[in-house]
Amino acid sequence: MANCSPLALVVNCGSSSLKFALFDTSLPSPLVDGLAERLGSDEASIRFDRNGTRRTTPIVGAGHQQAFDALLAFLTEHGLRDRIGVVGHRVVHGGERFTRSVEITAEVMAGIDDCAVLAPLHNPANLVGIRAAMAALPDAGHVAVFDTAFHQTIPEEAYLYALPQRFRRDFGVRRYGFHGTSHRYVAARAVEFLGLDPKDHGLIVLHLGNGASATAVSNGKSVDTSMGLTPVEGLVMGTRCGDVDAGALTYIARRAGLDVDALDAMVNKESGLLGLSELSNDCRTLEAAAAEGHAGARMALDVFAYRIARTVGALRMPLPRLDAVVFTGGIGENSASVRASVIARLGFLGMHLDEDANRAMRGGTAGCVSRSGRPAALVMPTDEERMIACDAAAIAFADAPVAFSVFSEAAE
Amino acid sequence: MANCSPLALVVNCGSSSLKFALFDTSLPSPLVDGLAERLGSDEASIRFDRNGTRRTTPIVGAGHQQAFDALLAFLTEHGLRDRIGVVGHRVVHGGERFTRSVEITAEVMAGIDDCAVLAPLHNPANLVGIRAAMAALPDAGHVAVFDTAFHQTIPEEAYLYALPQRFRRDFGVRRYGFHGTSHRYVAARAVEFLGLDPKDHGLIVLHLGNGASATAVSNGKSVDTSMGLTPVEGLVMGTRCGDVDAGALTYIARRAGLDVDALDAMVNKESGLLGLSELSNDCRTLEAAAAEGHAGARMALDVFAYRIARTVGALRMPLPRLDAVVFTGGIGENSASVRASVIARLGFLGMHLDEDANRAMRGGTAGCVSRSGRPAALVMPTDEERMIACDAAAIAFADAPVAFSVFSEAAE
Ligand SMILES: Nc1ncnc2c1ncn2[C@@H]1O[C@H](COP(=O)(O)OP(=O)(O)O)[C@@H](O)[C@H]1O
Ligand SMILES: Nc1ncnc2c1ncn2[C@@H]1O[C@H](COP(=O)(O)OP(=O)(O)O)[C@@H](O)[C@H]1O
Repeated sequence: MANCSPLALVVNCGSSSLKFALFDTSLPSPLVDGLAERLGSDEASIRFDRNGTRRTTPIVGAGHQQAFDALLAFLTEHGLRDRIGVVGHRVVHGGERFTRSVEITAEVMAGIDDCAVLAPLHNPANLVGIRAAMAALPDAGHVAVFDTAFHQTIPEEAYLYALPQRFRRDFGVRRYGFHGTSHRYVAARAVEFLGLDPKDHGLIVLHLGNGASATAVSNGKSVDTSMGLTPVEGLVMGTRCGDVDAGALTYIARRAGLDVDALDAMVNKESGLLGLSELSNDCRTLEAAAAEGHAGARMALDVFAYRIARTVGALRMPLPRLDAVVFTGGIGENSASVRASVIARLGFLGMHLDEDANRAMRGGTAGCVSRSGRPAALVMPTDEERMIACDAAAIAFADAPVAFSVFSEAAE
Repeated sequence: MANCSPLALVVNCGSSSLKFALFDTSLPSPLVDGLAERLGSDEASIRFDRNGTRRTTPIVGAGHQQAFDALLAFLTEHGLRDRIGVVGHRVVHGGERFTRSVEITAEVMAGIDDCAVLAPLHNPANLVGIRAAMAALPDAGHVAVFDTAFHQTIPEEAYLYALPQRFRRDFGVRRYGFHGTSHRYVAARAVEFLGLDPKDHGLIVLHLGNGASATAVSNGKSVDTSMGLTPVEGLVMGTRCGDVDAGALTYIARRAGLDVDALDAMVNKESGLLGLSELSNDCRTLEAAAAEGHAGARMALDVFAYRIARTVGALRMPLPRLDAVVFTGGIGENSASVRASVIARLGFLGMHLDEDANRAMRGGTAGCVSRSGRPAALVMPTDEERMIACDAAAIAFADAPVAFSVFSEAAE
């Protein structure tokens, strides 16, 4: 019978890619996952991972629609297509309109389109994926899960910029925050893992991947976060600059003769760890180079850790209490040296690294890496796909919420 | 004999103004101070304050040189000119070159000129004042005191932006920080006042005026500060935005059709308390309006206080210990309600407002406004002119440093 439970398909459309994962939400790992890349080009291809085996197929010239067709053909071939009960769609920007995951209606699609001006590279691609999936799977439920929704509980004093308020009224300029699905998932798992009171806890979640952001979570709610209107603000990232003086940007624009588009490309694609190190945006590469004495790599990693620790201090402020600082994302889960470097700067919180536990921590597992006492430093793997699947299932199968909830699992 | 001690003249040239003060540095208040304004226009005038009486004279069409001549004529008339032993010049930007106050030589002037690219509105005006003063008072010592110098002890991990490093090499792009003279003066006075160990203390100084910045001071040295390459970064100010998403700036530029110059004017002149409140850049005006129910004024003051408190959290991080948060500047010294609003958000540091002490605090006086225990919340009036006079005297009269040191005074 377990074999017959409805499945949740997760779809994440980028501008030229389509990521997917198919979940039986009672199981921790997806049945199938994969990625279609370079869509719209001659090198377009789609990759499927299932039961530890990988298949990659060229789909020359395919767009999102054809990639979606290839995905469904694969699922049909493996007898999985007819079991799809719901599709969870990742949507980047929900503006002020979407404060939680919602079933997709024509009105919701119009709302996502309205928010496209805030995320012009992402929301339109997300809508393409939604349309393709609704056409192909008209009998399934379709649910939108927003990167921004979790942060809609942030109060006005924290989300307003000190800019002319006409830009807020006319163009929606305010802080929104991103990575909300990851922060929400990781915070909930951390509460379980540490046995905290769901109604009385404080966490700072550090999502450290190619993109990176930090969120202060009080009693399950986001109260402040490091990203803003766009994902450029906040921490140092792979190629994004994070916090920077507005006056420095206009100074650079004048001296280097950059226009607004060139400035935007510079802060998004040439900055961050790459700009600092002049070597790579990739943490692993930088760690290897730093170990061999590359000064730029060493310095980039120092600035990265310093700014994370400084942001932890900033986000400590709005929390009534702090139980743990939680590391997640590719870097947070895997880099013992970044964690050590950050935690070494958090002595002011009364936090001390447990060197052995930190070194012994394996990627993909959860555990404490600080010496006993609070606040704890915790590693908690994120799983945005699974969180999207759980949200989608909880909304589509309202009669079976518990079976699909990530929070019903026992703490590890 | 006290009457015969040499005097220190302090000169602060803005683009169309010349502020001045004449000190007998063994006395707390200047003998004469005043301001020449609207230089270069038909409305140019100069104002002298001496012994509680004010004299204002039109100096139609005067530039900095003529204003300086008018100042000297006034000082001659009062028998003070010949007693000037040293002139202390405020210089805004000292780049990486000037790490302390220095006697002005041809080489120093060339250095100030080199830094002019970083402060194109200020350094050239500062040089005009230096040339006028050196021509008129060739026998006096001339000393440059830099807004940035105090912050040159900030470590690389805190001053680097995560931008392409060619901008640092080619254009000097990094964080410098400002208000250094005020932060240095106030920190030293706070150490005296609280009886702290000069070699083992930690402070966060909040300079809150029309411009506003926060500095973390460890054992007399600046270790991090909120302003950056320019004075736009950091806290919310009268008309400057402080911290803002780089992506938000390019978004606004595109949607509102602003070019780089318009963007620069917007973040410098239309933002901050003015942009948030849509009413005024002036704290007093906003407090009065908020008391009468003006929602924009209330919100602007909330954001102002929230961001100050958030920055205190951020700057707590690099300090090995924190003895006090110190309020100074027009707002910090005078606004009990801003102080209360900030301190209410600093409970996470173990700091609690003493409401009676806070309300009773009079502008221009020093004292604690927190309940006993550490860290303390302290109000400490700033006096940049006096600090400049003391620096100038200490450098010019090396044989008499103690008599001119602000730090030799007993704690109040
Ligand atoms: N073992 C490791 N040690 C250090 N960094 C790692 C390790 N494994 C992955 N990373 C880093 O994680 C980052 C990618 O994180 P990820 O969360 O996958 O990114 P994204 O934001 O694209 O989802 C890269 O900088 C990569 O170098
Ligand atoms: N009694 C007061 N209450 C509240 N704010 C005050 C008071 N007195 C002065 N201020 C505020 O101080 C600010 C000016 O500070 P100041 O340090 O003089 O500025 P600047 O940076 O130009 O030197 C203004 O916003 C003014 O409203």
